[in-house]
Amino acid sequence: MDRQNSIEHLLPNEIEKRSFEIISKELKERGIELPKEEEMVTKRVIHTSADFEYTKTLVYSKHAVRIAKDLILNGADIVTDTNMALAGINKKTLAGFGGTVHCFMADETVARIAKERGTTRAAVSMEMATKLKKPLIFTIGNAPTALIQLYEMLKDQRFRPEFIIGVPVGFVNVEAAKELILETEVPHIVNRGRKGGSNVAAAICNAILYELKKEQSGV
Amino acid sequence: MDRQNSIEHLLPNEIEKRSFEIISKELKERGIELPKEEEMVTKRVIHTSADFEYTKTLVYSKHAVRIAKDLILNGADIVTDTNMALAGINKKTLAGFGGTVHCFMADETVARIAKERGTTRAAVSMEMATKLKKPLIFTIGNAPTALIQLYEMLKDQRFRPEFIIGVPVGFVNVEAAKELILETEVPHIVNRGRKGGSNVAAAICNAILYELKKEQSGV
Repeated sequence: MDRQNSIEHLLPNEIEKRSFEIISKELKERGIELPKEEEMVTKRVIHTSADFEYTKTLVYSKHAVRIAKDLILNGADIVTDTNMALAGINKKTLAGFGGTVHCFMADETVARIAKERGTTRAAVSMEMATKLKKPLIFTIGNAPTALIQLYEMLKDQRFRPEFIIGVPVGFVNVEAAKELILETEVPHIVNRGRKGGSNVAAAICNAILYELKKEQSGV
Repeated sequence: MDRQNSIEHLLPNEIEKRSFEIISKELKERGIELPKEEEMVTKRVIHTSADFEYTKTLVYSKHAVRIAKDLILNGADIVTDTNMALAGINKKTLAGFGGTVHCFMADETVARIAKERGTTRAAVSMEMATKLKKPLIFTIGNAPTALIQLYEMLKDQRFRPEFIIGVPVGFVNVEAAKELILETEVPHIVNRGRKGGSNVAAAICNAILYELKKEQSGV
């Protein structure tokens, strides 16, 4: 019963506000001041992970957040390598700007080609996405092979993504694949190291979408 | 170019195997020996988060994994509070045992009732789930209010869930809500503290499903 007394009674819309207040307070206590442009993105990643380590590992290329926002304002689509990120990205808000989220991981053609070639569905998914005739934000939350495929297509001058959110999680090739993207000139948000995931991928997209919505409503 | 040399060339099915080998090796280096029954669940949570902290915070009630497996063998359904966990749980494997995953978060009736009562959709979703006439494994990856609702229904003897996976993430009421569940007699897997999330929720369910499949195929 004591435990129940420690529950704060808040209305649903107050919970998120209170969460961000706690995050801001703890960042201050840790002496961390986030660059204004990146602040709401990094905070939303902390909100989705309860992990302040992201303040040290998230890498933003120059004006990355502004560039991602402008792409969305110009109707960019999002391509992701995970159905969980597809589920988590706010598709309604993106649609309001004219964009759609694509995930080809469950596509049967992708599965067949991947099997034939002995490669991952994620890598083949990236190739499928190049056929979309729109500016594209690649949001990779799971497969380092997706990042490697993007890097190789870029190097061979076969395809240039407009933006890469590179936050796969894991133990095999994840760190190396992220470093490849960090070397490129493609605007990016990458989480260095092993951590990341579809929740982080969705949080980054949603932070950008919510900020844009706020900017547009003049709040 | 040097970076590319650090990429391990593995076939898709080798990547997961190699990941678990690395996790096992690093657990050993840290002097951590996981109880046999819980081992594959905790390892899959590390696999999905790249975060070894879970070895210290995941709490299993007595024979929790065995109980969850038996529930699934008896055709239990899974109820979750997040569409991302719904996307991430292996529904095909669960269906093989006769189970389904339910998520009522996008249900319009749930949204309306929540608004009328000034409560969260997650809390109302839990009430909706009580109408399902099957053994239920509640898998909470997002909303502490879902855990609080389950606790209150249990205390009032209105409803008793068969199993609770309590891994919401966040800063408001998350820790306290998890402690409430830890006090109950309901079999559970709970991650103490702030961390968790829909990825962790899905990983726990999938670990149990994959182990069951292995047991059944006699591997």
